[in-house]
Amino acid sequence: MINVSIAGGTGYTAGELLRILLRHPHVNIESVISTTSVGKPVAEVHRDLLGETDLLYSDTFLNPDVLFLCLGHGLSRAFLEENRIPEKCKIIDLGNDFRNKPVYGNREFVFGLCELNRELIRRAGNVANPGCFATTIMLALLPLADKDLLTDEVHVHAITGSTGAGKRPGETTHFSYRDNNISVYKPFTHQHLEEIGHTLVKAGNSSLPRINFVPMRGDFTRGIFASIYTKWHGSMTAAETVSFYKDYFAASPFVFVSEEPISLKEVVNTNKCLLHIEFHNGYIHITSVTDNLVKGASGQAVQNMNLMFGLEETTGLKLKGSAF
Amino acid sequence: MINVSIAGGTGYTAGELLRILLRHPHVNIESVISTTSVGKPVAEVHRDLLGETDLLYSDTFLNPDVLFLCLGHGLSRAFLEENRIPEKCKIIDLGNDFRNKPVYGNREFVFGLCELNRELIRRAGNVANPGCFATTIMLALLPLADKDLLTDEVHVHAITGSTGAGKRPGETTHFSYRDNNISVYKPFTHQHLEEIGHTLVKAGNSSLPRINFVPMRGDFTRGIFASIYTKWHGSMTAAETVSFYKDYFAASPFVFVSEEPISLKEVVNTNKCLLHIEFHNGYIHITSVTDNLVKGASGQAVQNMNLMFGLEETTGLKLKGSAF
Amino acid sequence: MINVSIAGGTGYTAGELLRILLRHPHVNIESVISTTSVGKPVAEVHRDLLGETDLLYSDTFLNPDVLFLCLGHGLSRAFLEENRIPEKCKIIDLGNDFRNKPVYGNREFVFGLCELNRELIRRAGNVANPGCFATTIMLALLPLADKDLLTDEVHVHAITGSTGAGKRPGETTHFSYRDNNISVYKPFTHQHLEEIGHTLVKAGNSSLPRINFVPMRGDFTRGIFASIYTKWHGSMTAAETVSFYKDYFAASPFVFVSEEPISLKEVVNTNKCLLHIEFHNGYIHITSVTDNLVKGASGQAVQNMNLMFGLEETTGLKLKGSAF
Amino acid sequence: MINVSIAGGTGYTAGELLRILLRHPHVNIESVISTTSVGKPVAEVHRDLLGETDLLYSDTFLNPDVLFLCLGHGLSRAFLEENRIPEKCKIIDLGNDFRNKPVYGNREFVFGLCELNRELIRRAGNVANPGCFATTIMLALLPLADKDLLTDEVHVHAITGSTGAGKRPGETTHFSYRDNNISVYKPFTHQHLEEIGHTLVKAGNSSLPRINFVPMRGDFTRGIFASIYTKWHGSMTAAETVSFYKDYFAASPFVFVSEEPISLKEVVNTNKCLLHIEFHNGYIHITSVTDNLVKGASGQAVQNMNLMFGLEETTGLKLKGSAF
Repeated sequence: MINVSIAGGTGYTAGELLRILLRHPHVNIESVISTTSVGKPVAEVHRDLLGETDLLYSDTFLNPDVLFLCLGHGLSRAFLEENRIPEKCKIIDLGNDFRNKPVYGNREFVFGLCELNRELIRRAGNVANPGCFATTIMLALLPLADKDLLTDEVHVHAITGSTGAGKRPGETTHFSYRDNNISVYKPFTHQHLEEIGHTLVKAGNSSLPRINFVPMRGDFTRGIFASIYTKWHGSMTAAETVSFYKDYFAASPFVFVSEEPISLKEVVNTNKCLLHIEFHNGYIHITSVTDNLVKGASGQAVQNMNLMFGLEETTGLKLKGSAF
Repeated sequence: MINVSIAGGTGYTAGELLRILLRHPHVNIESVISTTSVGKPVAEVHRDLLGETDLLYSDTFLNPDVLFLCLGHGLSRAFLEENRIPEKCKIIDLGNDFRNKPVYGNREFVFGLCELNRELIRRAGNVANPGCFATTIMLALLPLADKDLLTDEVHVHAITGSTGAGKRPGETTHFSYRDNNISVYKPFTHQHLEEIGHTLVKAGNSSLPRINFVPMRGDFTRGIFASIYTKWHGSMTAAETVSFYKDYFAASPFVFVSEEPISLKEVVNTNKCLLHIEFHNGYIHITSVTDNLVKGASGQAVQNMNLMFGLEETTGLKLKGSAF
Repeated sequence: MINVSIAGGTGYTAGELLRILLRHPHVNIESVISTTSVGKPVAEVHRDLLGETDLLYSDTFLNPDVLFLCLGHGLSRAFLEENRIPEKCKIIDLGNDFRNKPVYGNREFVFGLCELNRELIRRAGNVANPGCFATTIMLALLPLADKDLLTDEVHVHAITGSTGAGKRPGETTHFSYRDNNISVYKPFTHQHLEEIGHTLVKAGNSSLPRINFVPMRGDFTRGIFASIYTKWHGSMTAAETVSFYKDYFAASPFVFVSEEPISLKEVVNTNKCLLHIEFHNGYIHITSVTDNLVKGASGQAVQNMNLMFGLEETTGLKLKGSAF
Repeated sequence: MINVSIAGGTGYTAGELLRILLRHPHVNIESVISTTSVGKPVAEVHRDLLGETDLLYSDTFLNPDVLFLCLGHGLSRAFLEENRIPEKCKIIDLGNDFRNKPVYGNREFVFGLCELNRELIRRAGNVANPGCFATTIMLALLPLADKDLLTDEVHVHAITGSTGAGKRPGETTHFSYRDNNISVYKPFTHQHLEEIGHTLVKAGNSSLPRINFVPMRGDFTRGIFASIYTKWHGSMTAAETVSFYKDYFAASPFVFVSEEPISLKEVVNTNKCLLHIEFHNGYIHITSVTDNLVKGASGQAVQNMNLMFGLEETTGLKLKGSAF
C-alpha cells in the first residue's frame, strides 16, 4: 500500500483526490491536512463522502510515501518551507509553483503530463501536475508539435466550469451571476500559456508556438471545452491526420479521438480526454474536452502517482462517467 | 412626477426597483443611496443598466415624495433612526421590519399585499411590502380565507430562486454548490409564517391557519414555485371553486387562474402571479408562481407606490416576460 | 464471470447499466439488444462510452446468466412473450410490469428493494427493480413501517431530474422549457404510489399508509430529492429515532443517515441514499436523496444482480460521486 | 395604430414578437396565423401570455399594414407564393429567405440591420430581418468595416442559447443532453457567414472579410455571446478606438460600448447589444452580447417596424432586462 498524505485538504481538488483515492486499491490515506479544520471529520467538509470515510483532518503528515499538495497557486513553495518533508517522500504538486520553475532545494519536478512524459514520470521523485486548461489544450496539440506543425498562430477558445475557480465564493461564482451566463476573463494573458508553450516545444515543435487564448467562464460546474485551430501546413490528408492522432495516443489509456463531434459531458466525471478533428478553410480545427477536476487536476495527479509507484496507469481511474 | 429615493441601492431588490422605475412614466429617481458606493455610477454596480442611466450613488436623499427601503431585514428600523425622514415623505419598506410590528414613531405601516389591502394602501402613508414566499403563498390562499375554509392544516412546499438569498456570496449560493442541486432550509420555521397567518385571518379566516411550510432552494435565479394543499371542507364543486377564485381576483390585474397546470417560467420577469387548482383525495391542491424579485419584492413595491399616489395600479408594471 | 444480456439497449437506464457493468469485475456483457440499432457500435449511441467498449448492438441474446430488461414501462411483458428466455436465465426487470403483478408464466418476481428484501433477492430467480421515486420514498419510510408508525397521512413532495423522463425528447424535456423552471405533474396520482404502499405494508406497517404525493419536474438531470413528513405518534425521542434509523440500515451499505441537512448532489452518480431527520410541530420530517439512474434504476439493478449471484452487495458499485 | 399580422404564430420568434407587440402603444394585432392551431387561444401555446391577450389563432390575415413572417428558414417564400399579400402591406421577414436574395416579385427587401441601414429601412416596403449570430457579430465589426480595417482574417467564437434552435424538440435541445454541456456545430460553415460578409462590405470594407466562425451550443436559453478578434492594422490607439466605436453608435439607441468586461446576462430580455474592446498581442479583441430572441430576432423586427412607420425607434422596446 502507498501511504498518502494530502495538504490543503478542504479545497475542491483535495475533495476530488479523496473521492478517487478512497476507491484506489493500493492506497492508504494516512492524513488529510488542514490548518483550519484540525479534528473535524473530512466528510463534514466534503459532504458527499458521508458513509465513505471516518478520516479526521490533522495538522500534519506522518510518514507518507507521497504527499499531494492541493494548496492553491503560489502556496506550495511556502508549505515546503514551513514543513520538513522526509527525503524519501515523493511530492505531487497540484498548484502551479513548480510547473515552469521545476526546482525546490534538491528536489526536481517533472512536468506531469503523462501522455508526453510517461517515462520521466515513472522515474520522478516529484511531479508538477499540469493546469486544467493547459492539459486540455496540450493534449489537442501534442501530435502536431511532435510533427513540428505548430508553425502558424494557434487560436484557442476554451470554456471552463465553475469548479475551476475554487471553493471561495465570489462575484463570478455566485449562482445568481453565473447561471445562464457566459463571460470572458484574462483574454490573451492566461497564466497557463507559459506551460503550454514550453511543453509543446519539448514535445517536438522547433519554435515556441504563438497561441491566442481566450478563456471563458461557463455556466456548468465540471469540465473544459476547448476549440482550437491553426493554419494547416501539413502534408497529411484529413484521414491520415486522424490516424496519426490515434497512433500518437495508442499507448495512452485516457485519450481518444472521436470520429464524431464531441460534447463536454462525454468526459465529465472521468479521467478521459476526447479529441475531434476537422479540416476547414485551410485550417485544422480540433475540439478537446476534459473534466477539469479529474484529468485536469486530481485524476491526472493519481495517474502520475500510479506511474511513479510502478502501478498500472489506470489503477483506480476507470471512473464511471456521469454522462448527464 | 413622483420624486423617488432608494436606500440600500446596491442590493438585488434595489437593482430590480431601478430596472422598473427607470421605465415608469411618472417617476423621477432623485437619489440612490449607498454608504459604500457614494459617487460611483449606479450602472457600475447593476451592470445591465449600462446605457439606461447616468445616476450616481449618493449618501443621502434630498426631498423625495417616497422613500424605498431596500436594506435587508432588520436594517430599516436602524435607517429610520439614523436619518430624519421628512414627514410628508411616504415610505415603502421592502424589508421585514414593519410587516408584523407595523409602527415606527407616528408612522403606521399598511401591509402591502395589494390584492387584499388595495383600499388601505391607497390611503397609506407607509407600506410594509410583503415577503416573497409570503406573497406567493397568501395569494393562493386568500380566497379560501375569505370563505373561512382554512380550517384544516395547510401543507406547503415552495422552491425559491437564488436571488431570494441576496447578493452576498455564500456556500449555498455558490454556483458549484447550487447548480443542478436542491435542498431544504428552515423547514417548518421560516420567518414568513407569521405574516402569512396574520394576513389570512385579516382576509376572513376565523382562526389562525396551521401551516406546515417546507422552503427549498432551487437551482434557478428568479421565481418561487409553491405547491399547497389542504383538506377540502367546502361545499363548492371544483368548477365553482375555480370560478370563485377568478371572481375573487377579477379586480386584481396581476393574478390569474390557469385552467392548465402552470410552470414557473410563465411569470418570470413579470409582476404576475398564476394559480392552478385541482382536487384530489379530498384535498384542494393549489400551485402558485411568482417572480420573487418582481411580484415578490420590487414589482409589488411599485404596485404599492402606484396605489399610494393615485396612479393606475399597473403603471410601469406591464413587463414583458422572459418565458425562457 | 456472469454472462449478461441487456434488452432495450439504447435507453437511459441501459446506458447507465453499461457504464456500471463495464467496470464490474465479475461480469461479461454478452449482448446488448436493440431492434433499431443492430450492428451499430454501442458507443455511438452512448457516446461517453467511447474508448470503453467495442460492443455492437445485436438483435438477440445468446446464453446469458441474467437478462436485464430496460424496455420502458409495459414493454417487458411483451418482450417475454416474443422471446423464449432460457429457463436458467435470471431476469431483472427495470420496468414496472412486474412490481405489482409479480408473476409471468412460472417465473415469480421478487420486489428488488435490497434494503427490505435482501434475503429474498439472494434466492430469487427474477427481480422487479423498484421505481426511482418509489425507492427514494420507501427508504425514508421503511424504519417507520417496521415500527408500524405510518398510521397518519404521509405528505410527500419529490423533485426529479430530467433523465427520469427518458430519452425521447418532448415538450417538458426541451431545454428551453425546462432550464430554470419547475412544475408539478401527476399530483396525488403517480403510478409509483401502489408499489410504495404495498411495500410499506410488507415492511411491517399494519395498514396501507395514505400517501399524498406531489411529484415535480426539476431543472437538473440526475437525482431525486424527497421531502416527507407525517404526524409523529411514536414514543421515541428525536435522538432515539435517528439512532433507530441508523440501526435499521446498519447492514445496508448504501443508505446513510446524515446528522446535517442534505442536498441532492451529495449522492449524484453514486448508488447511495442519504436520509436526514428532523422533528417539528409534532411531525417527523425526513429528506431523502438518490440518483434516479443509479440507486433509482441501474445501480440498484446491479445491486440485485450481486445478491442473486452470491457476490458482495457492493461489487462494482462503489462509484465516485460527482459532488458538483 | 398599425395593424399587424403574424404568420407562423406558434414558434419562438412569434411568441417573442407577441410579448413585445402586446405592449406596443401603436400596434393592433389583427391576426396571428397558424395553420395547425386555428381557433385555439394564443395564450394556450405561449402560456406566459395568460391574462395578457384573448387572441385566437386564425388561418389568414385580414388587412394588415405589416405582416411579420416567423415561419422558419426557407418557408417565407413558400408563404408568399401561397398567399396573396395586399400590395400596400409591408413585410418583415424573420427568416433567411430574403437576406441574401432580397427580391420577391416586385417586392425588394432591405437588410434590416438598423444600425447600418436606418435610412433605407425608413423608406423600405419590405425588410429582411438579420440572423441572430449575424447581428451580434456585425454590430461588433461595423465600425471596423467603416474604416476598412477588416483586412486580415477575423476569428469568431460565438455561443448561442437553446431558443436559437427553435421549438421542435430534438437530441441537442433535450435537457438531459444540453444541461451543463457545451458543443460546437457547423464550424467554419454556418449559414450566417454570407450575410455577415456582404453587410460588412456595404458598411465600408473594401474587400470581403475572411471570417473563421465557430458557433457553439450553450447551456442557457437566451442570448449570444461572441468573442471576436482580428489583427490590428489601424493607427488609432486603444482609447481612440473605443471613442470611435462610441461615436459610431451614438445615434443608435440600443448599442453601447462598455469600458468593463461584459457578461451575457447584461442584455438578456432587452433589445440591447453591449460591446467591449481590448487590445492584446497586436489584436483587437471585441466581445459582443445580445438576446437572440430580442435584438437577434423579434426585438429588431419591431425596431425595423418602428422605422418603417415613422415611429421613434425605441417605441415599445425599452424592455426591463432580467439581469439574472
